[in-house]
Amino acid sequence: MNKKEQAEISNRSKINRIRERGSYDRKTIYKIIDEAYYCHISFVVDGQPFIIPTIHARIDDDIILHGATASRLLTNIKSGNDVCIAVTHLDGLVLARSIFHHSMNYRSVVLFGKGKLIEDREEKLKAAKAITDHLIPGRWSDARQPNQKELDSTTFVSIKIEEASAKIRTGPPVDEEEDYQLPVWAGEIPISQVMQNPILDPN
Amino acid sequence: MNKKEQAEISNRSKINRIRERGSYDRKTIYKIIDEAYYCHISFVVDGQPFIIPTIHARIDDDIILHGATASRLLTNIKSGNDVCIAVTHLDGLVLARSIFHHSMNYRSVVLFGKGKLIEDREEKLKAAKAITDHLIPGRWSDARQPNQKELDSTTFVSIKIEEASAKIRTGPPVDEEEDYQLPVWAGEIPISQVMQNPILDPN
Repeated sequence: MNKKEQAEISNRSKINRIRERGSYDRKTIYKIIDEAYYCHISFVVDGQPFIIPTIHARIDDDIILHGATASRLLTNIKSGNDVCIAVTHLDGLVLARSIFHHSMNYRSVVLFGKGKLIEDREEKLKAAKAITDHLIPGRWSDARQPNQKELDSTTFVSIKIEEASAKIRTGPPVDEEEDYQLPVWAGEIPISQVMQNPILDPN
Repeated sequence: MNKKEQAEISNRSKINRIRERGSYDRKTIYKIIDEAYYCHISFVVDGQPFIIPTIHARIDDDIILHGATASRLLTNIKSGNDVCIAVTHLDGLVLARSIFHHSMNYRSVVLFGKGKLIEDREEKLKAAKAITDHLIPGRWSDARQPNQKELDSTTFVSIKIEEASAKIRTGPPVDEEEDYQLPVWAGEIPISQVMQNPILDPN
């Protein structure tokens, strides 16, 4: 993505189905990415698609991922192949009077880019901090920071967001005119991801 | 998958990283699939990977997906190409004394298969029922069932699960021996997906 308010669009990122739910607004897209604890990334090996769920962070227009240096995922990504990343929040079930109009409320982003290895020590530390503080703001300062051995055994990659689109559904069901009279309960069942009480490490 | 307790395994589905978190047990895998409201599916078009989040259901060893007949996703899947599906539940954040040992508790499945169009009318209805009742048990009987026009404008595909693996992490953080003395809070922050009070359709 370049520095415009709208993300780049091509055929691969254009919303084809239900276009009024689509958005290419950079702020909208980045908010959805930043509010998620993890993403799904897909890559291709010998024509075979793979998906892996993984923790992420965003630094400007880059998605940061990390993992063990030996991981198949990171080996593939750092070689610069095309990847696709999805970030999805489920916000609720939408119950219509007809089965056909049942739906979900959600916020999702699909983005495209190519990965690159983060090699510089300072950049690696910045990536580690971004991932840590993305999950638990301030945690980087509270816990013991990585030593050289730990840093060496972790691979960090950055994926420049080349294209991205968001898709969002909110609100009540939309039924056929003639179905509104049916004696069927219709509405939304909101779903949220809720943090429960912390459990102290017994050790 | 054939009718064994263990899923088929090849290099593409073998857990390489942190093997003690991996499982090929059919019951474990199916439970993770069935407890999710949606999955992510990836497919390849001209070497480019795509991911789409979508509602699913499972009938025996098949994953059922549906959507508008014109959708890019379903057009690709029904042509019988290889697809990869991921199902992920985030169960909590794991805070260690060291940044390096921070983790997440999760249950995830990655599976591989090939899609095929569901053409038979009775099979389409069975698929529609499975998807509906997967989200809201009993809803198929409560709401107005699809008419012929609605059924015609919906494509259903089934993906036979050829290979699958689960990966699960539970429990407290694991720190380096020398870090247990550090004055850093460590433990789990459980996260759950919670249904809120239903909102009646204002219409």
